[in-house]
Amino acid sequence: MQALVLEPDLKLNMREIDPGERLGPRDVRIAIHTVGICGSDVHYYTHGRIGPFVVREPMILGHEAAGTVIEVGDGVTHLERGDRVCMEPGIPDPSSQAARRGMYHLDPSVRFWATPPVHGVLRPEVIHPADYTFKLPDNVSFAEGAMVEPLAVGMHAAAKAQITPGDLAVVLGAGPIGMVTALAALAGGCSRAFITDVQQPKLDLAASLGPITPVNVAGQSLRQAVMDTTDGWGADVIFECSGSIHVANDLIEPLRPGGRIVYVGMPVEPVQLDIVAFQAKEARIETAFRYAHVFDRALALMSSGAIDVKPLITTTFPFEQSPAAFAHTVQPPADTVKVQIEVGASVA
Amino acid sequence: MQALVLEPDLKLNMREIDPGERLGPRDVRIAIHTVGICGSDVHYYTHGRIGPFVVREPMILGHEAAGTVIEVGDGVTHLERGDRVCMEPGIPDPSSQAARRGMYHLDPSVRFWATPPVHGVLRPEVIHPADYTFKLPDNVSFAEGAMVEPLAVGMHAAAKAQITPGDLAVVLGAGPIGMVTALAALAGGCSRAFITDVQQPKLDLAASLGPITPVNVAGQSLRQAVMDTTDGWGADVIFECSGSIHVANDLIEPLRPGGRIVYVGMPVEPVQLDIVAFQAKEARIETAFRYAHVFDRALALMSSGAIDVKPLITTTFPFEQSPAAFAHTVQPPADTVKVQIEVGASVA
Amino acid sequence: MQALVLEPDLKLNMREIDPGERLGPRDVRIAIHTVGICGSDVHYYTHGRIGPFVVREPMILGHEAAGTVIEVGDGVTHLERGDRVCMEPGIPDPSSQAARRGMYHLDPSVRFWATPPVHGVLRPEVIHPADYTFKLPDNVSFAEGAMVEPLAVGMHAAAKAQITPGDLAVVLGAGPIGMVTALAALAGGCSRAFITDVQQPKLDLAASLGPITPVNVAGQSLRQAVMDTTDGWGADVIFECSGSIHVANDLIEPLRPGGRIVYVGMPVEPVQLDIVAFQAKEARIETAFRYAHVFDRALALMSSGAIDVKPLITTTFPFEQSPAAFAHTVQPPADTVKVQIEVGASVA
Amino acid sequence: MQALVLEPDLKLNMREIDPGERLGPRDVRIAIHTVGICGSDVHYYTHGRIGPFVVREPMILGHEAAGTVIEVGDGVTHLERGDRVCMEPGIPDPSSQAARRGMYHLDPSVRFWATPPVHGVLRPEVIHPADYTFKLPDNVSFAEGAMVEPLAVGMHAAAKAQITPGDLAVVLGAGPIGMVTALAALAGGCSRAFITDVQQPKLDLAASLGPITPVNVAGQSLRQAVMDTTDGWGADVIFECSGSIHVANDLIEPLRPGGRIVYVGMPVEPVQLDIVAFQAKEARIETAFRYAHVFDRALALMSSGAIDVKPLITTTFPFEQSPAAFAHTVQPPADTVKVQIEVGASVA
Repeated sequence: MQALVLEPDLKLNMREIDPGERLGPRDVRIAIHTVGICGSDVHYYTHGRIGPFVVREPMILGHEAAGTVIEVGDGVTHLERGDRVCMEPGIPDPSSQAARRGMYHLDPSVRFWATPPVHGVLRPEVIHPADYTFKLPDNVSFAEGAMVEPLAVGMHAAAKAQITPGDLAVVLGAGPIGMVTALAALAGGCSRAFITDVQQPKLDLAASLGPITPVNVAGQSLRQAVMDTTDGWGADVIFECSGSIHVANDLIEPLRPGGRIVYVGMPVEPVQLDIVAFQAKEARIETAFRYAHVFDRALALMSSGAIDVKPLITTTFPFEQSPAAFAHTVQPPADTVKVQIEVGASVA
Repeated sequence: MQALVLEPDLKLNMREIDPGERLGPRDVRIAIHTVGICGSDVHYYTHGRIGPFVVREPMILGHEAAGTVIEVGDGVTHLERGDRVCMEPGIPDPSSQAARRGMYHLDPSVRFWATPPVHGVLRPEVIHPADYTFKLPDNVSFAEGAMVEPLAVGMHAAAKAQITPGDLAVVLGAGPIGMVTALAALAGGCSRAFITDVQQPKLDLAASLGPITPVNVAGQSLRQAVMDTTDGWGADVIFECSGSIHVANDLIEPLRPGGRIVYVGMPVEPVQLDIVAFQAKEARIETAFRYAHVFDRALALMSSGAIDVKPLITTTFPFEQSPAAFAHTVQPPADTVKVQIEVGASVA
Repeated sequence: MQALVLEPDLKLNMREIDPGERLGPRDVRIAIHTVGICGSDVHYYTHGRIGPFVVREPMILGHEAAGTVIEVGDGVTHLERGDRVCMEPGIPDPSSQAARRGMYHLDPSVRFWATPPVHGVLRPEVIHPADYTFKLPDNVSFAEGAMVEPLAVGMHAAAKAQITPGDLAVVLGAGPIGMVTALAALAGGCSRAFITDVQQPKLDLAASLGPITPVNVAGQSLRQAVMDTTDGWGADVIFECSGSIHVANDLIEPLRPGGRIVYVGMPVEPVQLDIVAFQAKEARIETAFRYAHVFDRALALMSSGAIDVKPLITTTFPFEQSPAAFAHTVQPPADTVKVQIEVGASVA
Repeated sequence: MQALVLEPDLKLNMREIDPGERLGPRDVRIAIHTVGICGSDVHYYTHGRIGPFVVREPMILGHEAAGTVIEVGDGVTHLERGDRVCMEPGIPDPSSQAARRGMYHLDPSVRFWATPPVHGVLRPEVIHPADYTFKLPDNVSFAEGAMVEPLAVGMHAAAKAQITPGDLAVVLGAGPIGMVTALAALAGGCSRAFITDVQQPKLDLAASLGPITPVNVAGQSLRQAVMDTTDGWGADVIFECSGSIHVANDLIEPLRPGGRIVYVGMPVEPVQLDIVAFQAKEARIETAFRYAHVFDRALALMSSGAIDVKPLITTTFPFEQSPAAFAHTVQPPADTVKVQIEVGASVA
């Protein structure tokens, strides 16, 4: 089939490739409709590797996807031909130690789309386990369906935070993950989120999404803003979504005694933490990796109206312009959040 | 001062009474603006007792209140004259075993407004500890401020439920507490709430408040409705708010394996539970009593727009018609939810 | 093979039967050494059914077992021929909704030994999934290994209790499950357990097992005993292990505010609970069903010396006297706790 | 009274001093019997400060204490003259935000013995709030009572770890805090603790205290030792008790997916953490500061026999040799764990 292939020499080609998949009894075949471009897709394109994962063979990119079921395996009961769906891109071994304990995303043997050597889904069709394929509610579009994967990162972070209704949140970083994390935190019970960045257009967009207070840390003190709002008590939970190694003070200074920190951003170098400052507040630091058990929850909150991701989809390209979409995403305009590619039309 | 007094012979009088209060260093004096009528006020009026609490001396009624600070004790730092506030009606001993562990509402020595022999607040003024007095945000009215007390019951129940973002909730009973519990559950992270009752007007009102699905259990099966929506898996959390002793099946049949039940309603007789049915799903039953640490959280969610209690305030009486307000509430029209009394105008 | 077969007419026969098993790639074949007799085995023998599970075909009894691995499937890596092991008797579908969330024991499709129509293990050999087969530490005997299954019930209850180190526990009922629950609670962090019963020999045995205070509720008040010890505060956790429907007061009266109740016993009829009494303390009621993820933990605590189950094994019969062992267990002497059958010698 | 006074010039004097205390209605007067020397006492002696706390006025040292009640305030009900007791050295404001939420130890206004400018208890008598004074069980000696304070640090860490019965623990550092943490972890439900150090005598002592496996990280790999024991899965919880900034790898490499880290040691400089390694396992990092609500729990576990601190008390000095005791503790022999001073005889 025709697909967007990243070659080992890091050229991007729209070309024929055979992903070599076969429909098993618990699988479905899905016609892909929409695929979002993630920072990791771009990073493989520009650098050819992420940590130990190196592009050595031609690999189809893309892992944020929605589409339509066009064939179902014999053992599939909860999906049928014509269902509009989105898909969880990691496939674990259900018998692994981690999966048996409900933490399938921590199974080191997970096969994850567009992570070498596993193909992604910028292509017309894919075969996927029905257990990791989720029906879209009628009022959720394909474009929104393709946003479930990044939103799931925010949802998982919000779940890790063990929010008590009415908590005050801080989100460090107003990139796509910071934004979906703020939305998930609010839908998950927070009454307000402070969000930080140094790019004002991102902060302006964030502030338009709900009870979100932007703090431009180029000139403002986050600690001061939070303490003024809370009579000096502090925020209940802080989500680190910037990936920066320079946020150590913002992780702990605005936090209340007994508060929680959720580490979502993945800094490329070690971070220096003054442990004693965390101990003086008995901060709990949760670290988050992808997500588990949240796709259906993200869809439910989208469908109810509690989360609206549409303002985050800022640009859409047709499938045949996929290389142009990547070129656009490598150096995006300041107001770009999420770029998507429309692979095909709905099939029913 | 002039107050609404319930006499030991269960007559209601607007008359002079001296509550005998003195401003301590950590207290504030509050001019009362709005007071809501609670089921317990009505019950003392109609029955003269609730459990061990018997009306033996004249007692001022009312404990859902908002007003304006008109005097502050020397040791009060976070409030000042003119602040618009609402008040937590229970005053614990901060040195009790329960209070020291953060569960001040479970301290048996709590003094609670309008619970014999403690006076309530249907009167022009009250003196109250500043620690249990909460400033209203600018966009929260006195009428809404007087709703914080009943909302706090729902907020506390939602906190007990340990909601994971996107949970599906069921609320048994669409009375005032069922309604605020549904609102708190949604603001606290649930994606949808099913609510049950046998009075259709209450269900219709509930359905207008958000992603709330009414189930008239006079004719519909709650279990069926939930299982149809969840592919046979069940609801994540069930809030019992009816107080009925006939809801045992509705407590467990719609629940998912590993789900939680929060018991808010207070049935007057023992309830028969088929424990084995609960064990087969390893249901957790949390029991809730009033609230703790939630007034500020309720205000934050009101102020952010996540919770709107205004549709629940269905009737308002002036102070001098307080006896009429009680007469109205004893036999309310079918569409009545909350009746309030305006005691006085704001004082600044 | 020769096995202890319960016939549909409820006769017990030692006779030839073919369980019809085949070694799969992730399975092991185990030579059975020791099997304990459980109350459920006896109940099938005396009544022919438990709830919906009816003995319609000949069924081998027994599910508390230890033995030696004598053959391993191609895909098994953590076990080898000669390993001494014990086995978890329930086999779930790892792809079920419950199993994927780590609650495999709540999967309704679990196949459980000696639960009709699934054969038990009072026979020389069984084939079992390696994932549910656990290696015995060198200092754990086969007899102790066959105690892991009942101990697992207590371990799971202790895990549900979310013990804080130093908690005070109450265990209602000094039968085998009450005893293992007390041992698990103490090994799991409790400083002391009160245990109740009306049979003094059981209480005497329990008191010899560790810091366990017996309370003969035929003449003593449990509430009084606990309140005297705790300055009127109450116990942190109460384990119901009697299965009686007459323990409602003992469930709540000795409990501290904010305490937890774990329901392990399975009463045959509904239990009447005064919900308001539970609410006044905000008691949490956890219900427990079998166990999950605890066999290795039980073995670790046995091996470290923290739990010693040997005093609970009061009688042992040879395999050929299995019918006599059941006759003995139906009407046991007052000091009987656990009866075991030695099926075979170790094979290496 | 005669006391051990640290002068602003860091001289230690046994001399007369008036601590200027007055018995309040909820206080008790205690004749001090035994006081342990803590690392912080030594640090004030050798450096004159810890962080922002500077010795500017003469200060009595010592905060690990046990003694006998010799006078009680009018409002004290649970203690009486002659009671043998130990004392929690930090006195919070019960009305602070933190204390009202049950976290009184995180109240910044806590007054803590032997932390400038608050006097410690190396003196014949002290007046203390009865709420923070705990009766010793009959089988707990004064020497053991004076060990409750350091043990409480380990108990609090064990509570933070949310141990599931049978967990495998790792303790980094075999100093006094590492040892009490290992004891608390085992009493709190762990089946085994690995403990690390580079001083073999400390490891040998630790190994004699229970199911504790010593790992001399001068020559052995902790990761290897843990992975060999757990089939490559890892430890459930890791307690950092060394205070070293060079343990980053030992914090995460031996941990299982979904495991917990409790940070007890207080490193004097920032620690470099490779966040991504923690995320790949979704490690939770809890930070611990002193303790709250654990003195009675520590005593209960001592009294039951679950924790024996006597082997940790390696040297005892008489009161008049207090300066010599400090000299000994500044440069202790390799097998020294805890040095205590006997201030006085029991008074009844």
